[in-house]
Order: sequence, then structure tokens, then C-alpha cells
Amino acid sequence: MSSSSSVLAPPAAPGDPLTRIDTPALVLDLDAFEANVAALHAHAAARGVRVRAHGKAHRCPEIARRQVAAGAVGICCQKVGEAEGFAAAGIADILISNEIVDPAKLDRLAQLARRVRLAVCVDHPGAVAALARACTRADARVDVLIELDVGQGRCGASTIDEVVALARAVAASAPALRLRGLQAYHGGAQHLRAAQTRSQVIAAAARQAALARDTLRSAGLDCREVSGGGTGTFAYETASGVYTEIQPGSYALMDLDYRANEPDATAPAMRQAIGVMMSVMSVRAGHAVLDGGLKAVSVDSGSPALRLPGWRVRGVSDEHTVIEPDAAAGEASAPDGGGAGGPPVLRSAPAPKPGQRCVLDPGHCDPTVNLHDWVIACRGERVEAVWPVLPRGASR
Amino acid sequence: MSSSSSVLAPPAAPGDPLTRIDTPALVLDLDAFEANVAALHAHAAARGVRVRAHGKAHRCPEIARRQVAAGAVGICCQKVGEAEGFAAAGIADILISNEIVDPAKLDRLAQLARRVRLAVCVDHPGAVAALARACTRADARVDVLIELDVGQGRCGASTIDEVVALARAVAASAPALRLRGLQAYHGGAQHLRAAQTRSQVIAAAARQAALARDTLRSAGLDCREVSGGGTGTFAYETASGVYTEIQPGSYALMDLDYRANEPDATAPAMRQAIGVMMSVMSVRAGHAVLDGGLKAVSVDSGSPALRLPGWRVRGVSDEHTVIEPDAAAGEASAPDGGGAGGPPVLRSAPAPKPGQRCVLDPGHCDPTVNLHDWVIACRGERVEAVWPVLPRGASR
Repeated sequence: MSSSSSVLAPPAAPGDPLTRIDTPALVLDLDAFEANVAALHAHAAARGVRVRAHGKAHRCPEIARRQVAAGAVGICCQKVGEAEGFAAAGIADILISNEIVDPAKLDRLAQLARRVRLAVCVDHPGAVAALARACTRADARVDVLIELDVGQGRCGASTIDEVVALARAVAASAPALRLRGLQAYHGGAQHLRAAQTRSQVIAAAARQAALARDTLRSAGLDCREVSGGGTGTFAYETASGVYTEIQPGSYALMDLDYRANEPDATAPAMRQAIGVMMSVMSVRAGHAVLDGGLKAVSVDSGSPALRLPGWRVRGVSDEHTVIEPDAAAGEASAPDGGGAGGPPVLRSAPAPKPGQRCVLDPGHCDPTVNLHDWVIACRGERVEAVWPVLPRGASR
Repeated sequence: MSSSSSVLAPPAAPGDPLTRIDTPALVLDLDAFEANVAALHAHAAARGVRVRAHGKAHRCPEIARRQVAAGAVGICCQKVGEAEGFAAAGIADILISNEIVDPAKLDRLAQLARRVRLAVCVDHPGAVAALARACTRADARVDVLIELDVGQGRCGASTIDEVVALARAVAASAPALRLRGLQAYHGGAQHLRAAQTRSQVIAAAARQAALARDTLRSAGLDCREVSGGGTGTFAYETASGVYTEIQPGSYALMDLDYRANEPDATAPAMRQAIGVMMSVMSVRAGHAVLDGGLKAVSVDSGSPALRLPGWRVRGVSDEHTVIEPDAAAGEASAPDGGGAGGPPVLRSAPAPKPGQRCVLDPGHCDPTVNLHDWVIACRGERVEAVWPVLPRGASR
């Protein structure tokens, strides 16, 4: 009996042509990725707001290092396991933008805080006490952001009184804990389709955050940081005059759900950089089948989109993606309306061949990356590098 | 820079109480699992049909070993990577119930066939030729099932003529290839809710398979095996007199999507054996938040269901599951209709506490197991064993 799980070898090596990548595989267009990172960081720098890129989107230490090299002050993550993985890879400034309450996890968090600049969020006085005990036991120092629920209705204090009480508890736990400020992320705003709606929702969030910040300061409590903002809204946090730091993650990779948003007037457009490469494994009359499914691409935000002219995704199951001619595309490109009985698009879009590689854009990048052990970083028609993704267990 | 991905330590150890499992974690109720395996195997044995349990559902070598110990002739899987993983763990008889066309994968398949009894499906003459070449190069012998599309509209030959032509190509590739029979799985029938509909669809599939089998035999071609059937339909394949082997996988673990089927009159009922354990990380007014999300439980077949009386799942995001009082349950258990303004269920169902463990039943077991490195096998209130899951890369 094997006593442990393991990781298989990468599906490609630097220098390989794209046609030699073993599938299914996660492929990153380096030109698009680098353009996205440069554009986001230029946008934030011009507005005097720091970027703390969210590592939950990619879980890839090499991507994190490149974001820091491009000017990010550090990385956000959601889990102690992610923080441990990024710290082991050399990321020196990490915010766990989430609540941690389990005593064993708090002990790991405190150990980690002895090695890197670490911050975490709280929304419950019991968690403040438990965090302080863990830090005292480990002789560690952790920065704390009070999470304020600015409208998402998930975690976070819902009243200013609650924020002040939590901040007092943190301040009273010095030197183990140090109050850094507020976490004011509105996850529910990221995919509101209309730019004006997103703008209004973030304006309201910023007003709430400003009120909490000012109340803390009036009470003699520290609040140097107001952190929040994601790929769907960062243009509004950077314009708010309230947020000091933004936390976008998906911007570097992109997905269909973010691309479906109406563009923001002042935000740079981001390019689709991540994709899932699959191979054609079966060609039938009127459809074909790709060799990847739910274990290669997440469908929680809808089906992936196929980058193959004239074809579209019909359905995704565990290890199969069925694709079919896109009737709309066929009609558009076959104005003659010829009378052949077969699927109309076959006149304009040739059927893929067994073994042919196809790339799909994921509906949601975060859970898609989590299905892969390796990011295959490509430039043009070649593999340039192969980067490991943090293990599945990083969710703990 | 780390040069490889890795696997984190298990979230529990044998002997641990359930409350000490690090979350999120995949937990298996051993009593339910053993009952499911015993019931399925007894059902099939009584009808003279072999069980070839599908390993794609669990990807766990120890579960596969227990299925073989309970009488399964071997294991099915969908990918060469899965077959390699099961073979390395000692499974000696494996069917890749799927098409493999990539030359590099065929070379791996042929190497594997030198060590275990291996079969694979084909639906294209080019794949027969490529498979034969790979086996000849490796001096390996592989059994072949011609896949017949019995109604799903995914892979598989769609006409009897096509089946016969493929079978002749396989027979002509002896001794590298050996024709074993037909793959006649109807994936689309598994979740048709009405038992009578499933029965009718499988009866039609069995007629198609019988016709193909008889045509092959009349042409002097071998067809000893007709394999197919899943958790939703196996009672109809075992009753058909046509299928010699069934391929259910989910039956051992179960999920909400299969439990939503109307029960079959002659199939044993299966118990929910697998679950995802999460911890409460935030408790707010009217809702609470668990520390697992899309990276711990798949939602492609709908939200998971919470095993916590009076509470239900509101939504799942990357690393959070928001739960709320179940108003229906609250009303049912609070007939007094008292006038308190809070959520009604709080009168009957106490709010969970920070750190409290909860278990959720997944909508779809296969992609949920694939999110975890370890199966935590539990008996009553204790962890009995910890079993590795095949790596993410097993989809290649």
C-alpha cells in the first residue's frame, strides 16, 4: 500500500512546441499575463494606491514573485496553507484576507509570522483572543485588519460599534497583535455587470470604510490601511481616496465571468491569459469530444469557451468536453445558404482532427487553476517555463 | 525557486476524534461505504453479472483494493494516468473505458499493458492502428472493446457497420490487439429521474448492444464481453441478459445527484458515504460561514447539502460556504408561531459555534474527491484510516 499521495511529472518542458503539451494542461499566455500585470500596477501607481495581488486566483509562487517584482507590496491569500506555500517560495509580506479561528491553524499562523510580515483578518472577539494566545505562545507578532462587511453579507463586522470593540481588543493584545486597519472587500460587487452599479456599490463601501476608519482614529486607535477591491471594481477603490491598498487576483489570468462585465471607463482592459488545453479524442458526425472535463476546468461560473473558430462547447462531464459546430457562426460565414443537409458550419469551419490541441477559456479562473499541478507558461508557439501550483491541501 | 509541486501532510491521523480533523477534508463513513460495496456486489453476483468498479469516482487505490476484495473483477478508469496509479497500487485488471488517441499516451498505455491485464475502448480506425503500433513497439498485448454509442451522443460508433469495421481492424491487429467485445455505457441515462424512463432507455441500449454482438459473432468476430452500466442504471443492465459486466463507481460513495433519482424496484439502496468536512469560521446575525468552498466541493451538479439540523447552504464561493437557518425547517418545528423578530429557526436550531465541524454531502462525488489529496476513513466518531487519492495529474 502506498503511504502517500504524489505529484506527476509536468505535461511539458521548456522549449516544447504547444502541440507536444500533454493534455489536459493549464496554459498561460505570457505576453497577455505580463501586459495585465503591467497595466494594473501602472493604474494603481498613478493613483498612489498599493497593489497586494491576491494569490488565491493563481496559487502559483512564480506568478506571485513576478507580481512583487512588478511592484506589488506583497500577496493576499485566504488560507494558512496558501500563506505557508507563498512564504516558502520567498514572498515576504502576506495578508490572509480571511478569518482563521481553529487553534491548530492559529499555531501554524503564529509560526509563520516569525518568518514573514504577516497579517490576518478578524470579525469575532473570540478569534482575537485565540490569535493573541497563539502569538504569545510562539513569541510572534501579527498585524490585524478588522474585517468590515461593506455589503457582501459574508464575513465581517456589520456595525461601527463592533469594529471599535474588535479594534480595542486587538490594541489590548499588544505586542502580540498590532492593529493595521480595515479589510473592506466587497466580493458581491465584482460581477455586477453594469459599470455604474459597481461604481455606486463601491462608493457606498468606501463611505462605510471611511466612517469606520475615522471612528477608530477618533477613539485613538490605529487605522493606517484600508484594503479591498478586486478585478471587477479596483478602478473605484483606487479612485475613492479611502482605500490604501487593492487586492485583485484574477486580473493577471482573467476568465469569462470577469470578461462579461461592462468595461470600466478608467480601468485598463485585461487580456485572457490563462486557458485549459485539451486534445480531440473522438470525432463523430456533428460533434467531437475533448479529453478534459470537470477535473480540468471548473464550471461553477458556466461552461468554458472554446478557442476554435466555428465550434462551441455543448457540455462538460467528468473527463469529457463535447464540442459542436456553432450554428450561429456557420450561418454568418455561409451566406449562400447552400442546401447541404449536414451541420451548416462544417462548410466554413473544418472539423477538428483526433489528437488536435484546443484551448478553452475558463468561466472562473481560481477553481480551474486549483485543478492543476503545473502552469505551462507559453510565449507564442513555444513553452517558455513550467511553474508548480501549490498543492490541493493549501485550502487548509 | 521550488522546482516541483508537492503534497501536504494528511489532515488527520488514525485514532483522531472527528473534531480534530483539519478542515476542509474529505471524510468517508466506512460503515456506509462497506454496506454499499456489499449490497452492489451481492446484487450483481445473484444475477451472474461481473462488477468492474469505476475508479474515476474515487481515484483512491485503497478503495479499489477493497472493491476487488469484495468480488470486483477489476477496475475501470478513464485516463492512462489513472490506470498507471491503480496499477502501481496493485490492481491487476484494468479497463480504460474511454478512447486514447495521443501517441505519447498510447506508448504509456502499452508499457502498462506489459504489467497488468489492460483493455481500452476505440471508436475510430485511426486509433486502432495507432494502438496496434504502440503495442507492437512495446511488445505488449492489449484487449479492445469497441465503444458503441447506445444513446448518449458522446463517444462511440453509431452504426453496426462501423462496429464491424472497427472489430475487423482490431482482429487484423492480432496478436498486439485482442477483441474482447463491446463498451455500451449510457452516461446520459444515469440521472434520468424516473425509474421507468431509465429502465426503458437501458432496454433500448441493451437491444442495440445485443444486435451489435450478434452481428459480430455472425461475422466470426469475438464478443465475449458487453460492458456498461452505472450507479443510476445497473439494475437494468444486470437484468438485461445482454450485459456481462457493470461499471458503477459512485455507488460506493454516493452524492445528491444520484440520491435525487427515483429508486429502482430491484436495486439495493445506497447510503451517503462520502462527505466534505468544514469548520465554522464566522458567525454573523442570520448566517454563518464555513471554511471551505469551490476548492473543497464541486458544485457542477448543484450546491452541497449541509448535515446540520435547521440550517442550509446559501452559497459557495472559492473558500467560503455561507449557511443560513432553514426557514422551512424552522416553521415545521416551531408551530407556536411566536413573535420573536429573529430568524425563526433559531428557536429550534442553535447557531453553530466558531470552530464547530460540519459535514456537507456533495452534489457530485467524482469532481469533489478530485479536490482532495486524502480520504479520511471514519468509523463512528473516530478516524480509522487515511488513504491517498491519485494526484491531480491523473487526468492525463
